[in-house]
Amino acid sequence: MSDLPLRVVPLGGFGEIGKNLLALEYDQDILILDAGLMFPENDMLGIDLVYPDITYLTERADRVQAIVLTHGHEDHIGALPYLCKYLDVPVYATALTRGLAELKLKEAGLLADSELHTITTDDVLTLGCFTVEFFHICHSIPDAVGIVVHTPVGTVVHATDFKFDQNPVDGKLTDTEKLRALGDRGVLLLMSDSTNADTAGFTPSEQSINGTLEDVFATAHGRVIIATFASNISRIQQVINVARLNGRRVGVIGRSMVNNVRMAINLGFLDIAFDDLLSTSEMNNRPPEQVVIVCTGSQGEPSAVLSRLASGEHAQLEIVPGDTVVLSATPIPGNEELVNHIIDDLFRLGADVIYSDLCDVHVSGHGSREDLRLMFTLTRPKFFIPMHGEYRHLVLHARLAREVGLPQTAIQIVESGQVVEVFPDRMQLGEVVNGGHVLVDGLTVGEVGEAVLRDRKHLARDGFLVAIVTINRATGEVETDPEILTRGFVYVGESEDLIEGAKERMWQVLRMPGAASSARNKIKDTLSQFCYNRTGRRPLILPLVLEV
Amino acid sequence: MSDLPLRVVPLGGFGEIGKNLLALEYDQDILILDAGLMFPENDMLGIDLVYPDITYLTERADRVQAIVLTHGHEDHIGALPYLCKYLDVPVYATALTRGLAELKLKEAGLLADSELHTITTDDVLTLGCFTVEFFHICHSIPDAVGIVVHTPVGTVVHATDFKFDQNPVDGKLTDTEKLRALGDRGVLLLMSDSTNADTAGFTPSEQSINGTLEDVFATAHGRVIIATFASNISRIQQVINVARLNGRRVGVIGRSMVNNVRMAINLGFLDIAFDDLLSTSEMNNRPPEQVVIVCTGSQGEPSAVLSRLASGEHAQLEIVPGDTVVLSATPIPGNEELVNHIIDDLFRLGADVIYSDLCDVHVSGHGSREDLRLMFTLTRPKFFIPMHGEYRHLVLHARLAREVGLPQTAIQIVESGQVVEVFPDRMQLGEVVNGGHVLVDGLTVGEVGEAVLRDRKHLARDGFLVAIVTINRATGEVETDPEILTRGFVYVGESEDLIEGAKERMWQVLRMPGAASSARNKIKDTLSQFCYNRTGRRPLILPLVLEV
Repeated sequence: MSDLPLRVVPLGGFGEIGKNLLALEYDQDILILDAGLMFPENDMLGIDLVYPDITYLTERADRVQAIVLTHGHEDHIGALPYLCKYLDVPVYATALTRGLAELKLKEAGLLADSELHTITTDDVLTLGCFTVEFFHICHSIPDAVGIVVHTPVGTVVHATDFKFDQNPVDGKLTDTEKLRALGDRGVLLLMSDSTNADTAGFTPSEQSINGTLEDVFATAHGRVIIATFASNISRIQQVINVARLNGRRVGVIGRSMVNNVRMAINLGFLDIAFDDLLSTSEMNNRPPEQVVIVCTGSQGEPSAVLSRLASGEHAQLEIVPGDTVVLSATPIPGNEELVNHIIDDLFRLGADVIYSDLCDVHVSGHGSREDLRLMFTLTRPKFFIPMHGEYRHLVLHARLAREVGLPQTAIQIVESGQVVEVFPDRMQLGEVVNGGHVLVDGLTVGEVGEAVLRDRKHLARDGFLVAIVTINRATGEVETDPEILTRGFVYVGESEDLIEGAKERMWQVLRMPGAASSARNKIKDTLSQFCYNRTGRRPLILPLVLEV
Repeated sequence: MSDLPLRVVPLGGFGEIGKNLLALEYDQDILILDAGLMFPENDMLGIDLVYPDITYLTERADRVQAIVLTHGHEDHIGALPYLCKYLDVPVYATALTRGLAELKLKEAGLLADSELHTITTDDVLTLGCFTVEFFHICHSIPDAVGIVVHTPVGTVVHATDFKFDQNPVDGKLTDTEKLRALGDRGVLLLMSDSTNADTAGFTPSEQSINGTLEDVFATAHGRVIIATFASNISRIQQVINVARLNGRRVGVIGRSMVNNVRMAINLGFLDIAFDDLLSTSEMNNRPPEQVVIVCTGSQGEPSAVLSRLASGEHAQLEIVPGDTVVLSATPIPGNEELVNHIIDDLFRLGADVIYSDLCDVHVSGHGSREDLRLMFTLTRPKFFIPMHGEYRHLVLHARLAREVGLPQTAIQIVESGQVVEVFPDRMQLGEVVNGGHVLVDGLTVGEVGEAVLRDRKHLARDGFLVAIVTINRATGEVETDPEILTRGFVYVGESEDLIEGAKERMWQVLRMPGAASSARNKIKDTLSQFCYNRTGRRPLILPLVLEV
């Protein structure tokens, strides 16, 4: 038994915790579980991606033993290139997860310098003071695992994203026996997916949507186009299986999806030969009732295939009346408006569109309340930290833990950056570390922060107005007429009056005795008031007084 | 019988048609049905409200006979002040709808100049060549009516927003007998709500959520705070009814809700005395288990009460542990992220939060597929135009019309601005008129258009950079060092290198022989390239060359 605590350090996420990156720390050893990215929220204007803040790890780089991955979704492996750039540690993953991770590292030019190891659920790894095992879990991607970490303080089960699918596409069930055996031997701490803690019952099997797919494939008179996530290898296999039964052949379109499918076929995770997939020309020229096309863009991503099909801007493929489009996904909150516009546009092009409001075209990969309850029943942990999901999900998951009998003191709701210290007989809050996120914008990581975002919000709302005047350095006299540059505030071509009025106000300020010294601030105040009185809006105002 | 067609002119809405304003036109007479506004979509940056484009009506102002309103929701009466400013015509509405309309006109200072008439479902109006009757409909607001317009071409039924609630809060059923009688006499054209055309079954009664309310009121240990729409008078009555059964008293907070409640009580549409409502001080000081508070903000509106409660910024009310908050609404697509953040923040403050994913706290006011089917069965129209809802809903509603037996030629899907001409024996597309929308931003209506929005999107994504240089008019020499002003692009305090690099590039351009004449364009091109190479971003670049 140890006097030192096991330290749980959740990093990344907004409100969510440990969604993207979770570190376990004991004494001098740190183990990283997952390395995911986040997608920007709607108010993160102009931001492309969001990485977890890994300052805590880079400051302790020599103590990090390894990165262990649970599955190949973006929010679990998407920041791996970023971590591998700063941390020189081995990465452990199952074959498919490794395959997806390698595609990312290759794209970032980091594959050659990274050390990857393939693991199976039979492996036991010794990583510093940690002994690590794996258990198979069902999720919306094959070859996913939960992680068991035996530490000097006790055994930790990290259940990551999971559901108890009783009929998974690849036939591999969540390993309840291993979980039960772990429970028998004693689990110190369970950390488990909260995403669907507000959903009653068990989450249905991935195969529960086969009926819908069969109906659509059998009744559609033309091509069927199915949009889903590029990493949703199980869904792609389902489409292949149902297509075979209906005399249709499948093609895949979209760079990331083609790469993933090629890799999954090579590794044996998709039961189809790459040459059996339709080429783009076959998608267009075979009898339409024999064609199925799988593509990206189910979340309305503007640059993905589906969005370009809806706007008629795809180079190789065009929606024609008779096509049936299936959106095999539920919009992530924040994406609904985009997705709805795409559905409307596809209807306008004459397609029939099948989406989640109409029938079961998607099923969640995350366990619902009964799945979560079963995880407790199997592992019978002493302590529990709800992971993944937003704050409301953590609260509801914590309540569920109370329902299954854990005392309040055995449950800790924390957000990213809040360290939890776990002892054999108690759990307490540790310090708060940098646990937030860094914004990726264009080529830069972390350069665009709150100040820039605040300005972008201001500019998005009311635009800007730059007011320039030159003053003679020697005489203090105004040298040139005031100039106004403005965008996003008023339409300049139709606002001559307003612009002239603003210049007139500038003259009034400049004519005041002794104005030169404080002209900048006075111009700003005067123009702010003037713009607000005239338009009810508050553009960002930047005065510039040039001395010549 | 007439040789002239009845012209249906849908105005306003995005994708939606006739949601906000629908004109019927025959020969020289125009009748306006509803005068609603829209809420800006997420990509309409900085826009406060959206009005229908009424150019078509103002150009024919002398021919407009009247505005007839169906019910008091914003998307049906919110643009009334805008219409009343430009059209001097009488407005007809039921008592509650008139009450809500008067509050709007009063706020706009237009009440004294407007001519309003209260109507009941017994009234028959002669408005130009049109004879207008009304039939009661159930919706999520009391005193709602559908409109029957007898025209020289035939009878039009405008079913607006409705459902066949079998147990409405006010006991008044949708008037199926009148609808059936109309059907018996012959309906030329039906226009009917498509909002829920993708939802199976009948929409449940408003009272179907009473059970949830009763459970919450009975089990909550502290105060119950219920957020809903300010115009949802039925929901407020339900809350009052259930509170009475549970020994709780109700208070109302939020300016628009207090105004609406006061008016509804005065008109007899709420069964409670104004003095029986809790004051703010009573909300805070009575035993919490006896308190219910109804407030606005169920859609996450940033300035509404719920949002301010969640951020701890409300002046009179504070969320405390033990409070139970009920969001009695489903987020409108586009609002999910905002609403979710509010739910998370309320949980963080220690409240229990009941929202639509957890149990039935809201029911739609719009009929589902079986309601829509019943409307066809009752009215048996010769022609049909699906109204309200987005394009996908119109398509699905049109398909339903085919299912109930209408031939394809009897159904016309159109979008705003597309005139439809209806003859006794056929229907055809007319011309396309200005049917879009105008943007309200601050004090101005229609001033901010596509060009300004495009700039705002650019600024929101990558910010701007203004580059200024002064040149001596006489010598062509550079007079002052180049200046750079930038916001929303990089954080200036940490980007000295970049700014200096940009200035250096400006010098390079200016040093080129004969640069002065084309300096502006050359600086723009050079800086665009420089910024993109360095950051991967494309700020809006505005060069200014001042001659001194």
